[in-house]
Amino acid sequence: MRIALGLSYRGCAYQGWQSQPGGATVQDHVERALREFTGASLRVVCAGRTDAGVHALQQVVHFDSPVRRGAQSWVRGLNTFLPPDISVLWSREPGEDFHAQKSARSRRYRYVLVQHAVRPALLHGLVGWTHHRLDAQAMREGAAHLLGEHDFTSLRASSCQARSPCKTVHGIDIELAPDGRTWSFDFHANAFLHHMVRNIMGCLIAVGSGARDPAWIAQVLSARERAAAAPTFMPDGLYFAGPAYAAQWQIPEPVLDLPRLLA
Amino acid sequence: MRIALGLSYRGCAYQGWQSQPGGATVQDHVERALREFTGASLRVVCAGRTDAGVHALQQVVHFDSPVRRGAQSWVRGLNTFLPPDISVLWSREPGEDFHAQKSARSRRYRYVLVQHAVRPALLHGLVGWTHHRLDAQAMREGAAHLLGEHDFTSLRASSCQARSPCKTVHGIDIELAPDGRTWSFDFHANAFLHHMVRNIMGCLIAVGSGARDPAWIAQVLSARERAAAAPTFMPDGLYFAGPAYAAQWQIPEPVLDLPRLLA
Repeated sequence: MRIALGLSYRGCAYQGWQSQPGGATVQDHVERALREFTGASLRVVCAGRTDAGVHALQQVVHFDSPVRRGAQSWVRGLNTFLPPDISVLWSREPGEDFHAQKSARSRRYRYVLVQHAVRPALLHGLVGWTHHRLDAQAMREGAAHLLGEHDFTSLRASSCQARSPCKTVHGIDIELAPDGRTWSFDFHANAFLHHMVRNIMGCLIAVGSGARDPAWIAQVLSARERAAAAPTFMPDGLYFAGPAYAAQWQIPEPVLDLPRLLA
Repeated sequence: MRIALGLSYRGCAYQGWQSQPGGATVQDHVERALREFTGASLRVVCAGRTDAGVHALQQVVHFDSPVRRGAQSWVRGLNTFLPPDISVLWSREPGEDFHAQKSARSRRYRYVLVQHAVRPALLHGLVGWTHHRLDAQAMREGAAHLLGEHDFTSLRASSCQARSPCKTVHGIDIELAPDGRTWSFDFHANAFLHHMVRNIMGCLIAVGSGARDPAWIAQVLSARERAAAAPTFMPDGLYFAGPAYAAQWQIPEPVLDLPRLLA
């Protein structure tokens, strides 16, 4: 019985998604909860591996269960065995051909960045921070160079294991909230390379703060070497909004509304 | 030289505001940073002591400094020595007669509560949580019984050290955000007793979920015993928005706009 789960987690306390010998990753906690709840040792496959300190609004995983449970039973049962900063949101039975990673047609990430003179103590770890005043128009112009299919070698971590550096970026939306200090950067692509969003963020902030021209982004891309781009930006404000699948699988859409901390 | 500071902090990692032998409180961290920055051992007085796990949007403190620094120098210098979940927002020189606690005319607290079937993993520790669907009208009716001057013995912790159980509540505003799941409860009073807001929250949720009638709040109050009220609600969603002072002190107003996690 193939089961798909939607998961939300705060990445601050974890060494990223992927299982490690120390057992301090999100995958380790999810598989431990599955063992407690089902009595079986199960491996889960995720739609997109997140780095240390990166959060998920809706990670999607699948696994093959030897036991049958109702949809709400998976949610409530697993949450009992998970730490409070990892939650199962829903479960589905999408059929044996569904694959959380391979069936995904595209993925969305959101980066939340606070522009303020003083660092954000309350949301430390949950938002990126810059004291620079950023120029929306310049960043949008710079981001436009990244749309479409490109070789993203310049924006990929040296440790990236993807076979090809070519990805297709469907959209980058940059908005400043009415509070005048909270930026959201929404990224939509068929897939992302390791550190790709954080490397793009470093470049966009260099452009937004006036350190670089928007056209510099095109030069970064065509250089095809990591050293041409800005340093990798902090993981704190990065949220995996989730993968999108064909309608036949009946998997909930990526989540883009972040929880509110205000009324 | 009397200095006033505005502080923001996330309470999750601390044993509340007030200094303790273990040194794991917000006050301990602030006084340690002052020692590092000024070279002097200084004690700070705060406007309102917060419990373990309670946050501050704008705590106000004062101390007498043997050294003189510019306003921005206090902010940047102290933040260098503070952990990232405690930030100095501003500094002032209000004059020798200003007293962070005694000069405060009133205080504001906000409680942020998420109403959802699944616990909020991303904002764990930063919001309260209930799976009950709450009735705004019933809660507003219940809260109306608390307005004005009352003996709040029923809503005060047994450990409360305040001389009098009588406080004056100026307002309780209850709003549901457009997302349909995030409640904010704004409390304004001359002062608050220990656990008073969390005990009121327990009662309001009992009313909002239909377990109690709004008129029960009046009975709780008139009983004048702690056992008559609901259990103390979790600290997670409680924010000290700050004290208000006479205009002569030129201290910034309480902060009610919580940081946004959405655009």
